Amino acid sequence: MSEDDLIARFFAPLAGAEGLGLLDDAALVSAPPGHDLVITCDALVAGVHFFENDPADTIAAKALRVNLSDLAAKGAKPRGFVLALALNKSDDAWLQAFARGLKGDIDAFAFPLLGGDTVKTPGPLMISVTAFGLVPEGRMVPRTGARAGDLLYVSGTIGDAALGLLERQGAISAGQAGAHLVARYLHPEPRMGLAPALLNHAHAAMDISDGLIGDLTKMMRVSGVTAEVRLVDVPLSPAATAVMGGDEALFARAVSGGDDYEILASIAPEEAQAFERIAEAVGVSVTQIGHVLAGTSPPRFLDGNRQAVSFVSGSFSHF
Amino acid sequence: MSEDDLIARFFAPLAGAEGLGLLDDAALVSAPPGHDLVITCDALVAGVHFFENDPADTIAAKALRVNLSDLAAKGAKPRGFVLALALNKSDDAWLQAFARGLKGDIDAFAFPLLGGDTVKTPGPLMISVTAFGLVPEGRMVPRTGARAGDLLYVSGTIGDAALGLLERQGAISAGQAGAHLVARYLHPEPRMGLAPALLNHAHAAMDISDGLIGDLTKMMRVSGVTAEVRLVDVPLSPAATAVMGGDEALFARAVSGGDDYEILASIAPEEAQAFERIAEAVGVSVTQIGHVLAGTSPPRFLDGNRQAVSFVSGSFSHF
Repeated sequence: MSEDDLIARFFAPLAGAEGLGLLDDAALVSAPPGHDLVITCDALVAGVHFFENDPADTIAAKALRVNLSDLAAKGAKPRGFVLALALNKSDDAWLQAFARGLKGDIDAFAFPLLGGDTVKTPGPLMISVTAFGLVPEGRMVPRTGARAGDLLYVSGTIGDAALGLLERQGAISAGQAGAHLVARYLHPEPRMGLAPALLNHAHAAMDISDGLIGDLTKMMRVSGVTAEVRLVDVPLSPAATAVMGGDEALFARAVSGGDDYEILASIAPEEAQAFERIAEAVGVSVTQIGHVLAGTSPPRFLDGNRQAVSFVSGSFSHF
Repeated sequence: MSEDDLIARFFAPLAGAEGLGLLDDAALVSAPPGHDLVITCDALVAGVHFFENDPADTIAAKALRVNLSDLAAKGAKPRGFVLALALNKSDDAWLQAFARGLKGDIDAFAFPLLGGDTVKTPGPLMISVTAFGLVPEGRMVPRTGARAGDLLYVSGTIGDAALGLLERQGAISAGQAGAHLVARYLHPEPRMGLAPALLNHAHAAMDISDGLIGDLTKMMRVSGVTAEVRLVDVPLSPAATAVMGGDEALFARAVSGGDDYEILASIAPEEAQAFERIAEAVGVSVTQIGHVLAGTSPPRFLDGNRQAVSFVSGSFSHF
């Protein structure tokens, strides 16, 4: 199959009006007056970010959702994406399922395919998405804006995907709870509903993709502040709680492992009530886990006795 | 080295003001009033699009230039890019040279790094660039706009890179001429200077990346027209002419092989003189090689005796 045939069969039907049916070699994207265009880029490699034998529609959805999650954290509304796909085979059934996975989230999130490139690789499948979103002009929620005195919130529950990965790898075996956690690993839920609350009430936000501990540490560092976090307040799902029991190593994995795709936000105390109210209205749970302090030392993570805890590996790091 | 260290050391220094020093997880890009933002995306894989042992600065420059070439063909002025990089090792000297290669063209083309993602791969090095350019509103030069009666032009010379690849692979050995051709393969020259001429005078344009024969055929098909091309008029460099001698197989390779990164443009006869004049003023040679005809049959490629020639493999195809 030529690259053109492949595009015509599987990807052109996914392109929105601005994708020009993928007949052109470029696309246009614009922000309406009074808006900025936010760009973010996340790439996934088989064997690193997903399993090559994960269902193709799930892989496609994950590639979009990790990017949608970034847009949500910036307070942005999805606008469209460009897809670079490196394939090591040209398998009709796989491509059909992959395109179906894209199509599902293109429709669900009003997030059209604008263009891209499809190349052959002798290596693992790789998917690189450049995503575009819209925010009112000058209003993108930065990662760098946390201020001393802010309250730190996370959305949803933390650690499900990291434990789901252990289950997926066979390192733990947790039955029904394990299945829930694997589903959370395979199929992240980008918190798009939270975008307006962040836009209006957050000093800083980011999506938690490389582990709560590492990502929170990073947000404090780039904001020039530090924080105190109460680990007992980190929200956990019933499944995660059941799987971890009292195992400290699994807890460490839950708060430092990757793939949460929840939102970490830094909110001024006087904005907290409004933030919580909007979150509740859109049906996304948010939990206060600590607060921001002046200073540049690393954040302190406190256990139930208010003793500082350290993590050997604070983050899922690729290098 | 953590991903953050790697970004801080090698890539943050390359980021423009809008890249926010790569401290944020997203960037902003905007088109000034009265302009559209053009997006294009080209990905390169080691062993497919370049040799893993090509100089790292050359690989970096090529990844940018194949995208800049797309922008030029759309009549666009470079605006910036997002880089997704999949690395299989973390080698200081290589990364330094790669960053130096990026920096050279970031400066040369006023083309800032806006953001990106760096991931690990067990496979070959892969570089995916999403490039942004600016055109006056509604004026992007399409690939789909060729009209019967138009004249077909190409920039520069055709086939140098395809023959350079043969030299690089050791399939031919052509001394001084070979070295020139290898340089053309390694280091494409995006025809940015031609963008204004295309914007003002072309009905359609594209960059020739997959071979003149295949790309011209594609442009006619998506425009709903056909063409007649005089192969004796296809511009060849002295080096290519010397290397080919009278070898028809090498000539076929030259006109159907990839990596030219020259421009193919479809120009109304009454605009041809103005187009040629601007091209000359900016120092880019352009050559008329044929004309567009009504009809949807494949284009005809004529030899010196006006006999139609066919090519076994009309295009460098990835699948």
